[in-house]
Amino acid sequence: MSEQPAPAPVPSAVPVSAPDTARAGAPAAAHNGSVLPADVAAALKRDGAGLVAAIVQQFDTNEVLMLGWMDDEALRRTMTTGRVTFYSRSRQEYWRKGDTSGHVQWVKSVALDCDGDALLVRVDQVGAACHTGTRTCFDGRGLSVVAGEASVTGNAS
Amino acid sequence: MSEQPAPAPVPSAVPVSAPDTARAGAPAAAHNGSVLPADVAAALKRDGAGLVAAIVQQFDTNEVLMLGWMDDEALRRTMTTGRVTFYSRSRQEYWRKGDTSGHVQWVKSVALDCDGDALLVRVDQVGAACHTGTRTCFDGRGLSVVAGEASVTGNAS
Repeated sequence: MSEQPAPAPVPSAVPVSAPDTARAGAPAAAHNGSVLPADVAAALKRDGAGLVAAIVQQFDTNEVLMLGWMDDEALRRTMTTGRVTFYSRSRQEYWRKGDTSGHVQWVKSVALDCDGDALLVRVDQVGAACHTGTRTCFDGRGLSVVAGEASVTGNAS
Repeated sequence: MSEQPAPAPVPSAVPVSAPDTARAGAPAAAHNGSVLPADVAAALKRDGAGLVAAIVQQFDTNEVLMLGWMDDEALRRTMTTGRVTFYSRSRQEYWRKGDTSGHVQWVKSVALDCDGDALLVRVDQVGAACHTGTRTCFDGRGLSVVAGEASVTGNAS
């Protein structure tokens, strides 16, 4: 009901800067989390830095591609522009996936979990999701674990 | 190489308590993140509360079931006991999925992402993953979004 119309995409050439600095082409209201639909803003359970976790999943294969972080403004951009925007915890600035690499994430759907601290963003990923060049940020990064299954460990737990 | 042998599973009847309190049956060393393989402990990029995000995915369908949080000890238990253990940010205590609900998560694999702040835990989920009774914590919780695709918005971005 309070859904915002899609703004014009921010051109790639415009630096995407930290939320407390002026941004060319961005309305002042974009700094205010209230431009999110009120029910969404109210449902978010943000961490101490104002962020929620955003799981990014390939929409047709269900691969988990990566995890990023979003504040209200990153979520608003993701919900309204067709492209995924994150907030970088290390660089403390917004980044729109693919602006540098070309590896765009086209938004298919976004869901908020039951307790409001995680988003599931289903996308169509262009190329590699990981900056290292692997398809997902988890590829080839498995840890050594003891696997569990009901028939083996069920009688011991 | 520094992989630890699997400890005996913590019996369900033993209260799982906060990391700074004594736990029956748990060795003192379990309070120390160094019992994780050293390379894993070194690779973790923990938030201010000492936690990383843990995405839980059904191993055979690739459904994203939920997102939880793990500190070093929760990850150690998850890697070595065959069952997923989280650290609750709200209750500030460990919780092993399924101990109350019966909706156990049997561990199939665990991977750490490229920058060390997210885990992908692939499991075999018994019953509903969500405490509300839905299969996943995202079911029926979609937000209204503007979808993107290359052919439609590619010429405008």
